[in-house]
Amino acid sequence: MTVSKPRGTRDFLPEEMAKRRAVEFKLREVIQKWGYGEIVTPTFEELELFTLKSGQGIIGELYNFTDKGDREMTLRPELTAPVMRAYVNEMQSFSRPIKLFYFENCFRYERPQKGRYREFWQFGAELIGSNKPEADAEVIALAMTMISAAGIKGDLNIGNLSVLRYLLAQITTESVVSDQIMRYIDKKEYENLDTYLGELSVSADLIDKIHKIISLSGKDGFAAVKSARDVVGDLPELDSFEKTLTLLASYGVTDYTVNFGVARGLDYYTGIVFEVYAEGLGAQKQICGGGSYKLISLFGGGDVVSTGFGIGFDRIMEICDLPANKAETIVLITKPETQTNGIEIAGKLRPYVSVLTDIMGRNFKAQMEYANTVGADYVLIVGEKEIESGLLSLKDMKSGEQVSLSLEELISKFS
Amino acid sequence: MTVSKPRGTRDFLPEEMAKRRAVEFKLREVIQKWGYGEIVTPTFEELELFTLKSGQGIIGELYNFTDKGDREMTLRPELTAPVMRAYVNEMQSFSRPIKLFYFENCFRYERPQKGRYREFWQFGAELIGSNKPEADAEVIALAMTMISAAGIKGDLNIGNLSVLRYLLAQITTESVVSDQIMRYIDKKEYENLDTYLGELSVSADLIDKIHKIISLSGKDGFAAVKSARDVVGDLPELDSFEKTLTLLASYGVTDYTVNFGVARGLDYYTGIVFEVYAEGLGAQKQICGGGSYKLISLFGGGDVVSTGFGIGFDRIMEICDLPANKAETIVLITKPETQTNGIEIAGKLRPYVSVLTDIMGRNFKAQMEYANTVGADYVLIVGEKEIESGLLSLKDMKSGEQVSLSLEELISKFS
Repeated sequence: MTVSKPRGTRDFLPEEMAKRRAVEFKLREVIQKWGYGEIVTPTFEELELFTLKSGQGIIGELYNFTDKGDREMTLRPELTAPVMRAYVNEMQSFSRPIKLFYFENCFRYERPQKGRYREFWQFGAELIGSNKPEADAEVIALAMTMISAAGIKGDLNIGNLSVLRYLLAQITTESVVSDQIMRYIDKKEYENLDTYLGELSVSADLIDKIHKIISLSGKDGFAAVKSARDVVGDLPELDSFEKTLTLLASYGVTDYTVNFGVARGLDYYTGIVFEVYAEGLGAQKQICGGGSYKLISLFGGGDVVSTGFGIGFDRIMEICDLPANKAETIVLITKPETQTNGIEIAGKLRPYVSVLTDIMGRNFKAQMEYANTVGADYVLIVGEKEIESGLLSLKDMKSGEQVSLSLEELISKFS
Repeated sequence: MTVSKPRGTRDFLPEEMAKRRAVEFKLREVIQKWGYGEIVTPTFEELELFTLKSGQGIIGELYNFTDKGDREMTLRPELTAPVMRAYVNEMQSFSRPIKLFYFENCFRYERPQKGRYREFWQFGAELIGSNKPEADAEVIALAMTMISAAGIKGDLNIGNLSVLRYLLAQITTESVVSDQIMRYIDKKEYENLDTYLGELSVSADLIDKIHKIISLSGKDGFAAVKSARDVVGDLPELDSFEKTLTLLASYGVTDYTVNFGVARGLDYYTGIVFEVYAEGLGAQKQICGGGSYKLISLFGGGDVVSTGFGIGFDRIMEICDLPANKAETIVLITKPETQTNGIEIAGKLRPYVSVLTDIMGRNFKAQMEYANTVGADYVLIVGEKEIESGLLSLKDMKSGEQVSLSLEELISKFS
């Protein structure tokens, strides 16, 4: 009988994995140069970790299960909550800022569709312990540098929730009410928003201000901040935001849209929020999202702020076009009489180059055909004549050129 | 409230991850030079995949669950079955041999204890499509090369189940009976074995032969094979086994014990089996196991043989002592007036070296202290004087030496 892979999941075969690792290693290279260290957390966590963060409603999208000890567990749907949990459990005494990155798989139970999988990968960063504009600017610049290192031109949208939160504070102190308002804004359901605000007896003036703020966006960030000041006055958060934009210019990040309507639909973001979109497979898709948030106190830690982002690695892979890391390959061809010589020579070359020897008991001709099948860069012939003379025949499969080289010459050619 | 990580799982913080990745990348480097390509399969699979392979008894050790579509799923306990499933689903038309490797996490529900975790990592290889001694020798030599690349001296034990299977074929054709016998042998429960064989009315002569074979072991592999011939006669499988030992010598693998009692407790192994042990944490522990096996036909594919092994990555990490891949780090120190200059300079140096800039709004002294805290290799001072003169002060934190360099000189120093 045939067993299949689970619906909505994928097998990644070597050709595709070589491409995925090439992009992953490129992203690792960048983020490590910014001083971020890797964290790996368990693939499953207590269900409560995610309901605490996102409410009971999230359970419908989770791979949750009861383990054999009767504990409610779930495969992680994202990495921010696990990383913050690990901070609370193990890193509260570390000196700050704490700069972490992760590259991990996540799971969500949803109808599989083009580009949406039940197991998917996220590359993300969390910067714990700074609420300064410097932290916001570094995190945004890091995300854009990584996206650009993957060869992708991303459209950056930056918002700042502190302005909306300032207006909402004039309406309610109940988070359930402000969260509902934020959700309407995030989903651009402006009619529902107005009905809801009306039910709350919000003044026409305040409703007008909210609409002005959420429709406020522009490529000139400083002008957008100035327009925001015209609506809400000189909030200190707007000074910080201007500072962030100034610092972004030093990082070379000058092409973006400031959009005060970016609400990210997530209730724990506090100040800056940003999203990056890119063209791929015919449609503009979000490839990255982040911002500054408070989760640590929710999980039993202190009042510590963080800024972070997640890059949707599968989306990146749909769009980017980096070449796979492919090592040069030699297929080493032997006769039965020179098989053990061939293995010894392969062992001496392998520190420098990928070498395949026959393991099928094939004859000379079949070994040559195999070299073609696997797309070998070179064929190295190790026959009796070659062993006697000490000169091995190396054929370049692209140029067709054939040269005779000693083992030492071969080693220095490939090292 | 505080949420903890699930029992039996681990958080890996940056210091530990740097060590783990260093070893992983070393192992990747080796296996890719042998022409193996990476495969990644889903973290969870249909439960049936593992009960088909190992029987219903395995369910007690699994993280199995019913998904929202009422399908029986499980987190994978190992990778061989998933890789063979992927072969049956997607690779049957590929030219052989197919050389695959994986580095993935696995899950088992068991009482956590020292060195045993509920989520653990395996680095393994599967060579599909050759039943030749060449394949057996390559796989064993590859495993030993990887273990040695991790700086570990492993004790290699090689067995060959075909001899036991030949004797068992004279007792029964029922796999449930031979599997039971193999289990007694694997667990060294010789009294139970004799009782069981007695119940089956096995002749004293045959029982004697079985005991001779399972107690047959020695450092001289060829002598051990000769002794086996004295018991079971000139089986063609023994010729193959001798050939494997001859080829192993060409790979430089000469220090091992041939042990015909290695049964691996796994019912699908066919010919060669091997295990590698190493000293660690005061006890001799198995770090690798493998052999040749038939699973593909069980999963609906053809009668294709494979040889493979799995290395217990967590065990390797307990024992090995490779240095972490640590990039050189500069902490770049600025004053408020030179902050944006500092960010620009950091951007120019980051392609070559890890650079941290202040994101906490710290003063000069606090930034210096931070450089000490993070163990920076260098401090780069970017003050007003330095910007004016174009010469930046680089202090080597180990030697205490301080030099003035232009940005170009800095770049060439670190590139």
